[in-house]
Amino acid sequence: MQVNHGALQDYSLTLDKIIGHAARWHGAKQVVTAGNGGLDRRTGYGELLTRARHMSAELVNHGVVAGECVATLAWNTEGHMACWFGIMGMGAVCHTLNPRLAADALAEMLCQSQARIIIASAGQLELVDRIAAQGTALETVFVIDETRPATPPATLRLAIARFGDRAAGAKVDWGQFDENQPCGLCFTSGTTGSPKGVTYTHRGNFLHTLRQLQADVAGITERDVVLPAVPMFHANAWGLPFSCPAVGATLVLPGRNTDGGSLARLIVEHEVTIAAGVPTVWLDLFDHLDREGIEIPSLRRIMGGGAPMPEALQRRIAARGIEVQQTWGMTELSPLGTAMRPGDAEPVTGTSGIPALGLDLLLFGHDGEPLAEQRDGEGRLHVRGPSVVERYFGQNQSATIDGWFDTGDLAMIDRAGNLRITGRAKDLIKSGGEWVNPVEIENVVGSLPQVSKVAVIARAHPRWGERPVMVVEIADGDSISDDALLEPVRHRFAKWWVPDDVIRVNSIPLAATGKIDKRLLQERYGA
Amino acid sequence: MQVNHGALQDYSLTLDKIIGHAARWHGAKQVVTAGNGGLDRRTGYGELLTRARHMSAELVNHGVVAGECVATLAWNTEGHMACWFGIMGMGAVCHTLNPRLAADALAEMLCQSQARIIIASAGQLELVDRIAAQGTALETVFVIDETRPATPPATLRLAIARFGDRAAGAKVDWGQFDENQPCGLCFTSGTTGSPKGVTYTHRGNFLHTLRQLQADVAGITERDVVLPAVPMFHANAWGLPFSCPAVGATLVLPGRNTDGGSLARLIVEHEVTIAAGVPTVWLDLFDHLDREGIEIPSLRRIMGGGAPMPEALQRRIAARGIEVQQTWGMTELSPLGTAMRPGDAEPVTGTSGIPALGLDLLLFGHDGEPLAEQRDGEGRLHVRGPSVVERYFGQNQSATIDGWFDTGDLAMIDRAGNLRITGRAKDLIKSGGEWVNPVEIENVVGSLPQVSKVAVIARAHPRWGERPVMVVEIADGDSISDDALLEPVRHRFAKWWVPDDVIRVNSIPLAATGKIDKRLLQERYGA
Repeated sequence: MQVNHGALQDYSLTLDKIIGHAARWHGAKQVVTAGNGGLDRRTGYGELLTRARHMSAELVNHGVVAGECVATLAWNTEGHMACWFGIMGMGAVCHTLNPRLAADALAEMLCQSQARIIIASAGQLELVDRIAAQGTALETVFVIDETRPATPPATLRLAIARFGDRAAGAKVDWGQFDENQPCGLCFTSGTTGSPKGVTYTHRGNFLHTLRQLQADVAGITERDVVLPAVPMFHANAWGLPFSCPAVGATLVLPGRNTDGGSLARLIVEHEVTIAAGVPTVWLDLFDHLDREGIEIPSLRRIMGGGAPMPEALQRRIAARGIEVQQTWGMTELSPLGTAMRPGDAEPVTGTSGIPALGLDLLLFGHDGEPLAEQRDGEGRLHVRGPSVVERYFGQNQSATIDGWFDTGDLAMIDRAGNLRITGRAKDLIKSGGEWVNPVEIENVVGSLPQVSKVAVIARAHPRWGERPVMVVEIADGDSISDDALLEPVRHRFAKWWVPDDVIRVNSIPLAATGKIDKRLLQERYGA
Repeated sequence: MQVNHGALQDYSLTLDKIIGHAARWHGAKQVVTAGNGGLDRRTGYGELLTRARHMSAELVNHGVVAGECVATLAWNTEGHMACWFGIMGMGAVCHTLNPRLAADALAEMLCQSQARIIIASAGQLELVDRIAAQGTALETVFVIDETRPATPPATLRLAIARFGDRAAGAKVDWGQFDENQPCGLCFTSGTTGSPKGVTYTHRGNFLHTLRQLQADVAGITERDVVLPAVPMFHANAWGLPFSCPAVGATLVLPGRNTDGGSLARLIVEHEVTIAAGVPTVWLDLFDHLDREGIEIPSLRRIMGGGAPMPEALQRRIAARGIEVQQTWGMTELSPLGTAMRPGDAEPVTGTSGIPALGLDLLLFGHDGEPLAEQRDGEGRLHVRGPSVVERYFGQNQSATIDGWFDTGDLAMIDRAGNLRITGRAKDLIKSGGEWVNPVEIENVVGSLPQVSKVAVIARAHPRWGERPVMVVEIADGDSISDDALLEPVRHRFAKWWVPDDVIRVNSIPLAATGKIDKRLLQERYGA
């Protein structure tokens, strides 16, 4: 009965193959990086591959070995992208750092990753100095994205290096390793709790790329011009720096500035067709477009994620003939979880589509068992897939239960299969023994056209334990009474859900990822 | 320096996950199978999963174990599709057989695969009888696709079985195995040479699915209605029975009949949006549409493959506003190699697009070395990828050279990266010491609007060794002189390329896969 089956080829799914494919089949297609005064830089994928290989060789010359973490502290630029492929291509691990975080937080992450080398944008040398002063394993800083030679702070105790046009050393081997090799490290910069490191692997990112490129997910083609307004230091810029070269789409990288004016200029000048980012970025953009009377006819789709997009904003976007594609993801998912199918967009706040093949969702009840009926009931969202975390960086115990990762989110799945995140299990407010869900209130109030941003937080209360209070930012030129703000809450929810207080602020603070900084709000208004 | 990297989840890429995903997220979407008298059967993906699991349990009851080959002899039907997932889901290997081949050829393949069980369409029991008479390991035939109970031939020496609505045995485990486990076996039914078995694996087909679903490849979405006119017994029906459930597209399976009238009815009644098949199938369809004055407004794209699509046919298709997407593939590639990008279609015979991420192409010269310049020069096409054969069934030696599989095709890649197969290395005709390439002559003559099909073969010649002769089938109602047929050949090629003879036939014979049967033509006219 034993037969001698044939076999298919070994072909490890490593990320060097993505930039190699881009260079080979889309070598003339470009990565465009926003420059000062509109002097944008253009780099073909062929050239990007050459630069990345030179960087690999330079890192090898500096003693970097496979599996070692190399840190980056940079914006979305072609220089940063070349670093990614240079680090990952040789089997090292790219530890991306968020330049908007404080030096001590970054130093703590670096102590964990033990990076000896940090690659930093020219403008970040002051921050590198402050980080290095905290005591890390850092030895050398490579400076990238220089428009003119940067002057390092006199106090800087690291060696300064630069990537030459060609590496001094021999050509390095690329991609000759197992696909489960780590390639990246990103600490969740979550708005609550202490950051945990998520390790990405070549296999995880490669499969994420294929999943994202499906016509019913991001559906990016060679003809697209894609603007990731989501930073590369945060969950791989949603995987777009992999997906775009994989199909030869043009990438437009905004550098440091993602304000409405900067994005509008890039969209118009480079005829961007797809843009991706968190809702607050789009609020800024559309305010700017309205104020300045700018049209952006090339843009056909905005991928929103990171937080639910308010209905009013969705309507503003749709009114210009641009499709809104809501997605849901997490750093722990590499990061894409679900996406509305292109063409299915309806302005419903918080509905974020279905998972593509390669991600499984399962809702669990309070008893820790999967809900018998997975549709139309709220449960705690667990996920499973080849791009989902199994074990956090530096930890020995699994982050999964029976193979499923608990997102900590509460969610519902409607009859059509669309996921809606209904709250964070740990963000729930307990008032007099009853649960209040801030996200539900935010979705209802956020759909009022006068409301630009809204957050509901817990305030300590002597009798009820906690009570909800609401922080709102009203849209420019609009006004609305407290009563009108609370009216839809009274109408939709139980009496104890109605916030005790409405706190009006000029500008709701955002965390480094562009999401509302609830931790800060909690500190300010929750006492 | 050693750090404790995190990890992503183990998640083996097995095909049970595809039908599971379809049942979970697209359970109401259907597989439609053409029935007699237009009584088409409809099966939801949820129901298909249930049936496939029952089939698995029934096979386990019959002693089938993981790794064992189970044969199928069936057309494109939901019953056949349930068998696929039933066999593959439990880790057995689906050995698809072509009902149009002769019994002795099929018996030879079955002797190799040692299948004990064959699953056959009701109409195939006579053929099963003739196969079993040749001496194979066959013991039992499961009958599927019965509209009324089939009467087995009196001589049949196999036990007869049927899949009940629910399996007698316990629920079987699905997908609890390594992704490199074999899942399928398909013998190349090539028009020349003896058939070789290609073993497919779960990983290979899963990655093929993700590759095919890219927006720039097949770009299938949940809203699509897909008609594979290419048989499931031939190279997985180009992977569509995996890709369609993966995104929840409706599948329309034509059963046995792929004549123009049958396909036209299916396209109209089920509002097919994408159809896939070899050029001869589309010739038939468009002849029928023209003759009967039928419109098919729902159809937006035809994926052609298996052979270059003649320019005249491309123009006929394009004139109806339907896009022609040419592809190139091979049984050994699972089978997709390259595809024109949707929207890029131009009626150029033989141009078949670029490879998507996950397939590498390399052209080799006569010296066995890669061509220094890969664009605009002819070379021998080698390929590499996770869905490409490494070793044929039953063989111990690798089918690759330095990790590359030699397709045996001659090809060119143009400046835009589009592949054009220029000939079969072994089909070349040697006339007086000079090479003549039949495919190039066929492409030129095939682009004449009067020519329905054309084949150039070698005829033995006492002086020149071999000489080209041309066999043509003229389109209904058209006429053209021999001189006019040969004029473009004289114009484009060297004198010795001009065929010595023009043989007119009413109907060029097709092999079981729908390609022109060159082996038969060679026998008839090559002496």
